[in-house]
Amino acid sequence: MTTPDSARPAGAWRLHPDRALPAEPGTREIARVIYGATRDLPVVSMHGHVDAAVLAADEPFPDPAQLFVVPDHYLVRMLVSQGVPHRDLGVGRDGAAVEADPRAIWRTFCAHWHLFRGTPTRYWTEHVLVEELGVSAPPSAQTADLLFDEISERLATPEFRPLALVERFRLEILATTDPATATLADHTALAGRGWGGRIIPTFRPDALLHLHRPGWADDVGLLAERADVATDSYDGYLEALRSRRRAFVAAGARASDHGHLRADTTPLDDTDARRIYDDARRGATSPAAADAFSAHMLFEMARMSTEDGLTLQLHPGVLRDHSARAAARTGHDIGYDIPVATEFTRALRPVLEAFGDHPGFRLVVFTVDETAYSRELAPLAGVYPALRLGAPWWFLDSPDGMRRFREAVTETAGFFNTSGFVDDTRGFFSIPARHDLARRVDAGFLARLVAEHRLELDEALTTAVDLAYELPKAAYPPVR
Amino acid sequence: MTTPDSARPAGAWRLHPDRALPAEPGTREIARVIYGATRDLPVVSMHGHVDAAVLAADEPFPDPAQLFVVPDHYLVRMLVSQGVPHRDLGVGRDGAAVEADPRAIWRTFCAHWHLFRGTPTRYWTEHVLVEELGVSAPPSAQTADLLFDEISERLATPEFRPLALVERFRLEILATTDPATATLADHTALAGRGWGGRIIPTFRPDALLHLHRPGWADDVGLLAERADVATDSYDGYLEALRSRRRAFVAAGARASDHGHLRADTTPLDDTDARRIYDDARRGATSPAAADAFSAHMLFEMARMSTEDGLTLQLHPGVLRDHSARAAARTGHDIGYDIPVATEFTRALRPVLEAFGDHPGFRLVVFTVDETAYSRELAPLAGVYPALRLGAPWWFLDSPDGMRRFREAVTETAGFFNTSGFVDDTRGFFSIPARHDLARRVDAGFLARLVAEHRLELDEALTTAVDLAYELPKAAYPPVR
Amino acid sequence: MTTPDSARPAGAWRLHPDRALPAEPGTREIARVIYGATRDLPVVSMHGHVDAAVLAADEPFPDPAQLFVVPDHYLVRMLVSQGVPHRDLGVGRDGAAVEADPRAIWRTFCAHWHLFRGTPTRYWTEHVLVEELGVSAPPSAQTADLLFDEISERLATPEFRPLALVERFRLEILATTDPATATLADHTALAGRGWGGRIIPTFRPDALLHLHRPGWADDVGLLAERADVATDSYDGYLEALRSRRRAFVAAGARASDHGHLRADTTPLDDTDARRIYDDARRGATSPAAADAFSAHMLFEMARMSTEDGLTLQLHPGVLRDHSARAAARTGHDIGYDIPVATEFTRALRPVLEAFGDHPGFRLVVFTVDETAYSRELAPLAGVYPALRLGAPWWFLDSPDGMRRFREAVTETAGFFNTSGFVDDTRGFFSIPARHDLARRVDAGFLARLVAEHRLELDEALTTAVDLAYELPKAAYPPVR
Repeated sequence: MTTPDSARPAGAWRLHPDRALPAEPGTREIARVIYGATRDLPVVSMHGHVDAAVLAADEPFPDPAQLFVVPDHYLVRMLVSQGVPHRDLGVGRDGAAVEADPRAIWRTFCAHWHLFRGTPTRYWTEHVLVEELGVSAPPSAQTADLLFDEISERLATPEFRPLALVERFRLEILATTDPATATLADHTALAGRGWGGRIIPTFRPDALLHLHRPGWADDVGLLAERADVATDSYDGYLEALRSRRRAFVAAGARASDHGHLRADTTPLDDTDARRIYDDARRGATSPAAADAFSAHMLFEMARMSTEDGLTLQLHPGVLRDHSARAAARTGHDIGYDIPVATEFTRALRPVLEAFGDHPGFRLVVFTVDETAYSRELAPLAGVYPALRLGAPWWFLDSPDGMRRFREAVTETAGFFNTSGFVDDTRGFFSIPARHDLARRVDAGFLARLVAEHRLELDEALTTAVDLAYELPKAAYPPVR
Repeated sequence: MTTPDSARPAGAWRLHPDRALPAEPGTREIARVIYGATRDLPVVSMHGHVDAAVLAADEPFPDPAQLFVVPDHYLVRMLVSQGVPHRDLGVGRDGAAVEADPRAIWRTFCAHWHLFRGTPTRYWTEHVLVEELGVSAPPSAQTADLLFDEISERLATPEFRPLALVERFRLEILATTDPATATLADHTALAGRGWGGRIIPTFRPDALLHLHRPGWADDVGLLAERADVATDSYDGYLEALRSRRRAFVAAGARASDHGHLRADTTPLDDTDARRIYDDARRGATSPAAADAFSAHMLFEMARMSTEDGLTLQLHPGVLRDHSARAAARTGHDIGYDIPVATEFTRALRPVLEAFGDHPGFRLVVFTVDETAYSRELAPLAGVYPALRLGAPWWFLDSPDGMRRFREAVTETAGFFNTSGFVDDTRGFFSIPARHDLARRVDAGFLARLVAEHRLELDEALTTAVDLAYELPKAAYPPVR
Repeated sequence: MTTPDSARPAGAWRLHPDRALPAEPGTREIARVIYGATRDLPVVSMHGHVDAAVLAADEPFPDPAQLFVVPDHYLVRMLVSQGVPHRDLGVGRDGAAVEADPRAIWRTFCAHWHLFRGTPTRYWTEHVLVEELGVSAPPSAQTADLLFDEISERLATPEFRPLALVERFRLEILATTDPATATLADHTALAGRGWGGRIIPTFRPDALLHLHRPGWADDVGLLAERADVATDSYDGYLEALRSRRRAFVAAGARASDHGHLRADTTPLDDTDARRIYDDARRGATSPAAADAFSAHMLFEMARMSTEDGLTLQLHPGVLRDHSARAAARTGHDIGYDIPVATEFTRALRPVLEAFGDHPGFRLVVFTVDETAYSRELAPLAGVYPALRLGAPWWFLDSPDGMRRFREAVTETAGFFNTSGFVDDTRGFFSIPARHDLARRVDAGFLARLVAEHRLELDEALTTAVDLAYELPKAAYPPVR
């Protein structure tokens, strides 16, 4: 959505008001009307990765490079793919010799701006630079210093502090993602200052559910400490997880969040689960047993969801650290996580058979494997009440990616078995850009249905509001 | 296709004549011309699921709910996915306590009409309600009773009896689907009344080919009885199948119809086939052996097709009864059949190597896995004379689904290696709607080729007639 | 691209100048401008299959049938799929009784021209017939003889000799594909006549890397002879390959070319590689060992690329000789090579982890499995500097195929991680047609981005030139 003109910083660069709407004039005219119904709606951001500590501290953001370049894996991976070394972007393990001058990093980014042609990164960045920051010109080697200064100046003002931005961006809800072992102290502090229910945590237990992860034993130890429940047995481990979920619910959490390599939800019987857990405690787990345990725990998380109401968010199918060499050199989550083909029909069967029509269960599934849209996900969501299809995720959170999602799933699952737009944003500043783009793309899709006389305009208007605002709220439990 | 105005019941609600044609004005103008060449052609319905008994009895259809809601798995699954219990839709195993008042069921459906936005069910239903039944207004909670009364009134008139509709819908051929053990008495009766060759049976032996199906032994017993050939040996079983195929051919059948989980056609050698069959008779088949036998029998069905000329229709890749709990509660075929990834290149190799250029063999393959279109199915159909690609099937029998099919297969397989439009309709009333929609979508696809100067208009016109009428006839053997 | 009017032979048949550009008038207008920036650029043809001997001999091409029909597997497979026997097309193993009269073959092709509606073969052939040969009318039973005579007349003139066509087609570079055991005598001869660096060989070692191929032992013997290095040991075999690569580099080669069933690049340790090699020499290889060796050798080829700079071109995922019966009757490469699902994320991991950021390594990957575009290939190319995505290949080298490629990969990989247009042409005459079509389709894609305000026109213009000309050059090492 677009910041109202009066609030927009003054820069000479302007974006076209019809960007990302369909080119055909008749359809565009309809799309404009539909987009007009959603552009100014509040933002419901139920699945983000903004650090709660940043919000609680509410200090000015650092320089443009540390804010926009270094932590953005979309940006970093594209520059690296064209031969820019990680170190030139300030990316490296602690203690590595990397570029420390933010202005130098920013210049490198700006000089490679052409690489982002045709990508959503280009779209989001333009939106941030023009609509949020009001800079004077597109990035380039020539404009890099000017932009650096302009952005730095804005960031130093009170209006651009984190909590001011929550207002400015009209974020009705902002969910963070927090390890199951988080103290939630930042959320407690925010609640104490009146932000409870608006800035909320999300329960992410991945580190505890994947037995083969380095550090698992330590994390399970920390879990015991946080929950004040001994985790030296499988039953204690389950109870500790249950206890932490309760603590998250008490802190306002509405969902849990799960990254798994596969979508498998096959439960183990208790004896097997206990044995594998005990083996893992002794450091003696096979990869196959670890995988089986991860699947089993997904089933257990679903069972706990039926008890405490947290929506289960699942995004499977990504092979992490494709280059172990790069991970060793530069750390995780910097662009080497690559999708793999992902099966859902058989994988989700256990959980859907058991809880797919449970009135208290909500499962939102994301994918980066488009082949499952029409073949598996839409048919499943089109029959099981508990299942909602998450917005196109990650690499598919893009104009053509979102269009293909709607084209592939709507005819089988309709609109109301999707979650509406749920962003997955690491960059705080790009939250409005992403929601704005999704509203434009959905407006374009709905406009085509209207132009092809497959839908009436009044239906399209209410559906657009549903996709942008009502469905993302409905996919999560009501505030208690 | 559209019922001529003079024959159309008078209702206030009208559909746009350009619905489902492309939005771009130049392309739409071309599409209108192309659609004009096919809209009034007769319907060739070679793959339907209308009950022959309904046709033979030729009694008035029951109320709107029993006609349109209860038996339509598209409708039922969508309502269920949004929390409507099966019982409220009158769906349940024999003896279950389900809603018995058709008007109450109809009201539930109408009140949820918004769920079908963007789906082909919406499109088909609108066509049926307006073009065939001439009701006054779209379904809604407010109009439910009015529509129920209007439809009930039409259904009570002689023009809406089943055989009158065969004329009214201009069905040149209407194929039913019949178990291999069917007596075909209804078809005999219909033939005696002059409907032979127009209403024809289709040979469906699934229950006999999948050894692990509950009731297989009983079905094989019934097969023996119907064929008057002992089935206590594998050779007798084959001979009994052959005999039943002859009986179907004599009754006018033009095709066999096969639903398999996988497309595998690997033959067994006779010794293995006999051994597995004998084991199955003793109730001692492993799942792997049953799968191998299913694949083997698909090969044998192809071999028999080369002898008796029945076109082999294969639609693999659907996992039936995804929720065993739901199936136990409500029966089969009510929405819990979910697609899985399906391999064709290796799976069809045995049958295509053996019979792919046999002059008497026709194989029509359907899929609900779009990923095989450009990768496997179009390349295979583009070289083997026996193979024709079936119209997009089931979840893909939709405006965007059909468009994607043409876009993905035409460049490799051309138009003439497809079967043209072959519906797979359970709802008798929706047969015209489905053919009409296919004709519109194909017109739109051809119009784009013309608008992009990739095809001449005169070629597009004859191709449209081929897709709508000539190819579906050519994919099946001529009447003998 | 289009031959300038002055140079075009005079025929009455004309193609529309806007063919294959988008239909929507506003977008078409932009596309025309973009296409105008690339239509007259030279052609860089880095991946073709024109026979070097044909170029070196520089004799007139034979008749239309032997030039355009018999060797074109696209043409042959389509005619066969509609029941035309191979023999009627002059296709058969040496000594088979096949149609010998070129005019009869040509008539068969022309009479079936309608089969190619909607296919790229239609598009390419029209371009060749009109733009290159200036014939009077589209092919049909009626025009077959006229066209045969017109084409024969042109082919007899000096302007249509092979080397004259290299000029006429503005081929800046024309790469052939040559077995690793080729003498390269034709290239030496061409270089002696001033064509060095313009007509260049490509190193194709497939026959030597797949141990289970019939004739492998003989080929390895020939390798020893050509390289003058004994190949009775694995180390000698590696050294001989290295030596041949050097010879190819000396003859101007810029790339190696690899067809594998799978994309697997898992290396073996030396002991295993030696053992499998020694077993193969004794004719005692298992299929699994042969597959493992193929994968290992792909890794070794990548390692050698880092030493000698040849770009590694990989096109996996095709099952050759799907019908062994047809291959036995008619030979290889006549239409029975069918794609299979192909995994890249795990398969390419070894080579990308090892060499993905090596400054001297370039890997261009092609696929006929579209499902990998957005899921695996774009994410991989969007982070590893060495990887470039090859133009849509084979069945996907088509208007809609190329459009889907750009739509699926650009948002993740951008434009600059693709190779630009790299043809894979067996038909010399169709090289300009294919590049012209790619330039039109890319212009249409870029025009849509401009029309949707996702890209500026000046950016689209330079990007179009990059895709048509600069990127194909940049994907291969500079001339040494």
